Formats: sequence, C-alpha cells, structure tokens
Amino acid sequence: MTEKRIYNFNPGPAILPLPVLEEIQSELLNYKGSGMSVMEISHRSSWFEDIIEDAVARAKRLLGLDDRYQVLFIQGGASLQFAMIPMNFLPESKSADYVNTGTWSTKAIKEAETQSKPHNVVASSEDRDFSYIPKNIQFNKDAAFAHITSNNTIKGTQFHEFPDTGGVPIVSDMSSDIFSRALDTEKFGMIYAGAQKNIGPSGICMVIIRDDMFKLIPEGLPSMLDYNTFLKKKSLYNTPPTFSIYSVQLVLKWIEETVGGMAAMEKRNQEKAKILYDCIDASDFYRGTADKDSRSLMNVTFRLPSEDLEKKFIEEATNSGLGGLKGHRSVGGCRASIYNAMPVEGLKALTDFMAKFEKENS
Amino acid sequence: MTEKRIYNFNPGPAILPLPVLEEIQSELLNYKGSGMSVMEISHRSSWFEDIIEDAVARAKRLLGLDDRYQVLFIQGGASLQFAMIPMNFLPESKSADYVNTGTWSTKAIKEAETQSKPHNVVASSEDRDFSYIPKNIQFNKDAAFAHITSNNTIKGTQFHEFPDTGGVPIVSDMSSDIFSRALDTEKFGMIYAGAQKNIGPSGICMVIIRDDMFKLIPEGLPSMLDYNTFLKKKSLYNTPPTFSIYSVQLVLKWIEETVGGMAAMEKRNQEKAKILYDCIDASDFYRGTADKDSRSLMNVTFRLPSEDLEKKFIEEATNSGLGGLKGHRSVGGCRASIYNAMPVEGLKALTDFMAKFEKENS
Repeated sequence: MTEKRIYNFNPGPAILPLPVLEEIQSELLNYKGSGMSVMEISHRSSWFEDIIEDAVARAKRLLGLDDRYQVLFIQGGASLQFAMIPMNFLPESKSADYVNTGTWSTKAIKEAETQSKPHNVVASSEDRDFSYIPKNIQFNKDAAFAHITSNNTIKGTQFHEFPDTGGVPIVSDMSSDIFSRALDTEKFGMIYAGAQKNIGPSGICMVIIRDDMFKLIPEGLPSMLDYNTFLKKKSLYNTPPTFSIYSVQLVLKWIEETVGGMAAMEKRNQEKAKILYDCIDASDFYRGTADKDSRSLMNVTFRLPSEDLEKKFIEEATNSGLGGLKGHRSVGGCRASIYNAMPVEGLKALTDFMAKFEKENS
Repeated sequence: MTEKRIYNFNPGPAILPLPVLEEIQSELLNYKGSGMSVMEISHRSSWFEDIIEDAVARAKRLLGLDDRYQVLFIQGGASLQFAMIPMNFLPESKSADYVNTGTWSTKAIKEAETQSKPHNVVASSEDRDFSYIPKNIQFNKDAAFAHITSNNTIKGTQFHEFPDTGGVPIVSDMSSDIFSRALDTEKFGMIYAGAQKNIGPSGICMVIIRDDMFKLIPEGLPSMLDYNTFLKKKSLYNTPPTFSIYSVQLVLKWIEETVGGMAAMEKRNQEKAKILYDCIDASDFYRGTADKDSRSLMNVTFRLPSEDLEKKFIEEATNSGLGGLKGHRSVGGCRASIYNAMPVEGLKALTDFMAKFEKENS
C-alpha cells in the first residue's frame, strides 16, 4: 500500500513521517513483546512510563528546555487551552496582553472575554485581513502574560522573531510550528501545541510551562482544568490518550535520530518553503497572500487568477496525488501545509505540477 | 506476532477485539484508498464524516436510543465530565443527587463540591468499603439529575437494576460497562463513558445526552466546556481525536456485526462472568470481595488467603500469559477485568490456572 500514498498537504490532521507510521503498524498487535497492542497496555505500566518519559525527555532536549520547564500532555486541543490559560494565569487584579493575528488568536481572546478576565488586545493585523505580523508591539509591563499565535495556519503568517515584551512571559500557541525550528525558549512562560500538525495524530496537546507560571494559579479550579493537577501527577491524573502520546514519542524520536535535531529540521523546512515561495514569486499566475516578511514556513497560502481556476487547480492536483491543497473554508484560495513530515520531494512534485498547470491555463 | 498475544485482564486501557486491531493494522498506511493513514485525513473530509456518522448511528442502534438522544464525542475522559456535568446541568437554584459507590463516584461528587454547586449524597456504600450497591434510595423529586456510577471498576460492583428516581433524569458514568448489556435508556438524561474499557483506546469519551438536558445549560460557559458547542458542531467544533473515534467505530461495528448486537453481547458477558464467579464460589481459597447481588460482570475482584500468595498468584499468572490481574493500587488483591473483548477462552484459561494454583498452594 505504501507506494500508493499521496503527498498530503492537509493543514491538520496532517502528514506523519512514513517511518513512524510503519513502526506503529509493525508493532500494533504486540508492543515490544508485551503480548498487547500499545493501545491495550496500562497507563501505569512500565511500558507506558517509558513512553511518556522518553517523549518528555526528547521534547526537552530538542527545544533545549532547562529544568524550569515542565512538559505536560493535556486533552482537548489548543481550543481547551484558550480557556485554561486565563482560568489559570489570570487571578484577580491581573490582566493579560493578547496579539491578534487571525482566527486562532481571536478564539483565544474570546475565551478570556467569556470568563470576564481583564485583557488588552495590544496589536492586531485585522486591518489588512491578517496578512502580516504586527511589529514594534508595546506590551504592558504589568501584564501576567503576553499571548501570541506563533504561526497562523489559515492566513499563512508566522512570527520569525518573537517580540520584546520587556520581561512579560510569552504564552504562545505553537500548534502549527512547534518543533519546526530551533527556539530561544528564554522568553516563554508557556508554549502549547495541538499535536496534529507537526508532532502526531490529533487528540493530545503538548503544554510546556515554566515553573514561575504555576504560582499564578488560583485555588479551587476543577481538577482537569488546573495545570497543577497535570504537574503533580506528571500528566497521569487520569488515563491519558496513550496511543497519541506514543505516536508523539515516535515523531520526536524521528526528528532527533533520523532528521538530526532542530537545526537540521529547521534547515530542511526553510529549503522546502523556499522551493514553493520561489515558484510563486517567479510567476504572475500565482500570488502569495501574506506579506513577504511575515510568510509562514509551514502553511503557504496563495491565490490563482480566478476562483474557477483555483477549483480546477485543486481538483487536478488531487488527481495527481497532491492532496489537501484547498484553502481554509473561511478564506478560500489555495494552501499547501508543508509540516515537518513533508519531504522535499513533495515540494518538487507540487512545484512541477504548478508549472505545468500554469502553462496549460494561462 | 498474533500468536504471542496474552489474555489481557487490564482494567483500562484494556483488551480490544483482535479483528479490530487487525483491521486498524491492515489499513494504517492507506485508509480506504485515500493514500493517507486514517491519522492523516482531515476531520472535515468525507472519509472522516463517514466514520463519525457511522459511529453515532451504530451507538444509537445498539443502545436503542430514540431521536431525543444525542451522541457526542468529547476529550478529557470521564474525569472532565465530572466537572462539566455540574457546570452545565446545575444552574442557580438547582441541586443534584449523587450516589456514592466508590472512587469514581467520590471524584464526581468532589467536582460538584469544588464548584460550590448544591448537591446531596443520597446514598453511599462507604460503610462497608463500597462492597455493595445501595438499595431503595430516596431521591429528591426536584433534583436536576441523579448521578450514579453504573459499574465500579475498583471495587467490582455494578448496578444490575437502575434505581427508581421518580422521574429525575439519571446521569450515569458507564465508563466500564457501556455496550456490555442491553439498556432501557428511558430513565437516562445522560450516559457518559471513557472509551478505554469497552469501546476503544483511551483519549475519547462518549457522551450521550437527552434533548431536555441541554435546556439546563447556562449562558457564558467556555466553548470547550459547554455541551451545546459539541451539539451544535456535531463534535467537530475543533479537531477531534480522529484515530480514537475511528477505533470506537470499528469496535461498535464488531459488536453489531460479529458478536450480533447487545443481547448477544450481554449473554456472552454473563457466561464469562459466571465461569469466574463459579470458580471463586466453589473454593475456600479464593474469596470474592463484593456482595453477591452487587457483583460486577466486568471487573471481578477477589482475594487469596494472604498478600504473599496474591503476589505469587499475579506473578505466576503473568508468566502463564494472563496479564493485568493485580487489584487497583488503592485496594490491593486481585482483579480480572473481563470486558466485551475478552473471549470465553480467556476465562477458561484463567480458571484452569486458578485451580492449578490453588492445588499447588493450599
């Protein structure tokens, strides 16, 4: 079946590294001689302890996190984090700063609003349809945190440098670019990421929190909505999504051992994005939608001369084994999501197709 | 690898039907000709729509649910439901009744307490270490709901008949016995179940809610904690755990098409439990810990004459390919979890081993 696989440009759930899928498949009925599937082992067994500890250790090594940072696994996706962040980190009398760079930032802000938590939107790129990343943002020095979305899956923009917040801890949704590049983690109080783009199947969110942030958490939160529960029980207060965490572990192992770590991963991602942006920029037929200095290395958004051509493009691409190129339903157009697991060959296949399509349709 | 699989008596994550695991394995690299793993397809694709719609339809058919009942999929396990239930169904001025039959009920009650929601514990079996199911419970006629835990994984007890609440909707945690028996669903306002015992891998909770319950939900809850969000978006407000839902779909298909539906499943589960309880009752060496009329058909808890013998029993059983027989860490002793996927042969192998062990050690 392997040879019939397509190049999958889905925005998430998304492409996974083939060697990871093959490893999962090969041991699916009997995990490491346990006589059970990895889905059937206890989350209190030494088999699973090894899995989750290895996943945490690899995450810390890859991102260069020091001992102040805790790596937690929580269900509910980034969307539940949007609610948990103000619930945990905005006690009475504290306010937070939010930067609005698109749909996901907007949702994060809405959840602070719903809880009537004091917050300021200190910058927004809504004036130009979220096609750029705001610069020179002024943060409030007494903010509990500064929330950003590091990469905007829908609009195809990305923070290439993280803002100077004057010491206010950055809380960043990195769902669509975590582990895609080396990070200077010093500025971050929290990083969170739904797994289903760069690190695994859907159903698990990696949540990285710096020690000092836990001190903000008020008493009396529901157990499953309190980061302290996950800290104290090492993400094992209740049964975690064992299969998802196992898959994340294998993806991190692949980044570390096969790709060669974050620097190599970043280089590869830059090369991949360059192939596609160069193709777009060399043409008058394709038009990138994000400002050049704000372009995402993960989600490349572009338009064709007409919606009819876009429809035809997506259809013919699909028939050529290039899947998932449709833009988000809220914005239309085309989008190629080129996460970690997308090989360079996928970009070559895509740009070859784009050249051919342009020739045939212009 | 199949022939080296053990009989897995784990309490959850637990044994899954072998044909289901084999189906998952066979199509793991290429789901139904999509050229992608089921983990890589979009949750907005027709492939996944078919999966979730089929899972819901099968759940409704198997449990005989009429159109008033909505089948939702929510992350966070039963533990998050413990918090969401009072948050959603206890608006100002309403109170709820809880029956305490063990660890999980106690946790559910604690989450109502944490939120300062009015509630009454109308019955408890704590006086005899939760070894029985209370009878003739008096419920408050104006309670918003009556919460029970239908099966108690840790103590090995189970409601065989559901209490008469005088019309108050029952809200039941059925994590460890959902789809194990036919149900008269009329009494239930809500049924919820973490998947990892009878219906799939961990990481997804099936939540069944009757239409009238949604009317209790107050405005202004965080999106991911509001049952209306899941109702309105058919469990697709954000990216759901697609692989877990796919696995649940396959397990429900197995119950419906291979086992033959709920009546056949229940009969099989009764036969299996009888084999083990008969073995325990025929011996002075093994001693069941639950009252006979409260015994669980899913989790059979028993003791041996000494803790040393229990340790030896578990060790030798493990070496004989009978895994997961250790009692919950909070109570000790032995426990055989014999969920839907455990074949009759597993019970025969276990009782043969028990007879042999008794002979050698008494």
